[in-house]
Amino acid sequence: MSKVTFHIAMSLDGYVAGPDQSMQEPLGREGERLHDWFVELAAFYASDGTEVNESTPVVEAWTENLGAYIMGRNMFGPPTGGDWDESWTGWWGEDPPYHMPVFVLTHHPREPLKMKGGTTFHFVTDGIESALAQAREAAGDRDILVAGGASTINQFLAAGHIDEFELSVVPIFLGGGARLLDNLGGDLPGVEQVRVVEAPGVTHLLYRVAAKSGD
Amino acid sequence: MSKVTFHIAMSLDGYVAGPDQSMQEPLGREGERLHDWFVELAAFYASDGTEVNESTPVVEAWTENLGAYIMGRNMFGPPTGGDWDESWTGWWGEDPPYHMPVFVLTHHPREPLKMKGGTTFHFVTDGIESALAQAREAAGDRDILVAGGASTINQFLAAGHIDEFELSVVPIFLGGGARLLDNLGGDLPGVEQVRVVEAPGVTHLLYRVAAKSGD
Repeated sequence: MSKVTFHIAMSLDGYVAGPDQSMQEPLGREGERLHDWFVELAAFYASDGTEVNESTPVVEAWTENLGAYIMGRNMFGPPTGGDWDESWTGWWGEDPPYHMPVFVLTHHPREPLKMKGGTTFHFVTDGIESALAQAREAAGDRDILVAGGASTINQFLAAGHIDEFELSVVPIFLGGGARLLDNLGGDLPGVEQVRVVEAPGVTHLLYRVAAKSGD
Repeated sequence: MSKVTFHIAMSLDGYVAGPDQSMQEPLGREGERLHDWFVELAAFYASDGTEVNESTPVVEAWTENLGAYIMGRNMFGPPTGGDWDESWTGWWGEDPPYHMPVFVLTHHPREPLKMKGGTTFHFVTDGIESALAQAREAAGDRDILVAGGASTINQFLAAGHIDEFELSVVPIFLGGGARLLDNLGGDLPGVEQVRVVEAPGVTHLLYRVAAKSGD
């Protein structure tokens, strides 16, 4: 069955981006260090890297059977403070690494944006339930990945929509920034530990959300 | 050489106690679940438990070569709002599980409290540097364990006094409470991943703090 998942690199103190995110530093101060273990891998989409290690099968599994992405406005681009600057087409150049439909949560309508390589960004203005319904429609029996950022993931988790997730815990402190697993509210899902992978510069922790009674 | 360490059970969302800590629920709402993996172990100090599993050597290592503990006021007892109620001798009964000197950080002076089994509580009113100096004196070439709670550990970490630490990550969300690794400030130590142990209901992540230049 189709699953809704997220996976994300997190500092020891729970941040997925450092303080002061900006156009120049989209992951905030020191935030790039969250990806040090990742960018040297041959499995990294944008890499000239050649490394193959314990992280390789973990990273490869992330896109197996995937049919759609959902992301927050701030993951797609820096804040504009209002309507779209239509010349902005995401951080990733002409051929983004998604190669499938990506549903971007926003308050500002915009026509779908078709990129090279099969990625189309769809802009959803009526909330996470609508984004999820559209992503399910697009993905069919394939999975849906909530790509980030922190607040988007936290919303999906609090709403009980996540089936499985992976935290890639990086041995750094960021001391501030965008905190994952924050403001989740009171009705929190039960979780099972699925498996742990220790790799150079990172530990991957995979969890499954327990079905609620009545699900 | 003598090391300063901490180890603590932490929820996925970074809490070491749940919301609303009280006399009845010293670990706050749902906070006891942080110790579910622990209390069934034969290695648990207060247990009739008989279980031996991957956590056993981890727990046994915590007290190897240990010479002194440091803890915050709120780990020793519930808030009094002022001077000591001298009838309070800690949460642990006549024979606390420490069996060595324990330095309790407090604003209120109190004579040392000698318990059964070798535990003596010393009350330190002049701050963490003084507590650490006294603990080093008492421990000699043995290690010092900063037992908790969250704010005491955070202070020692921010001050650069921790050499090694273990996070026992429990697959639950607490949604609020006492947050570990919070308010660490800007001058954060570098960290190395030492080893990972996957055990029933918990994953133990051991880290070493990198020496700062000039140390």
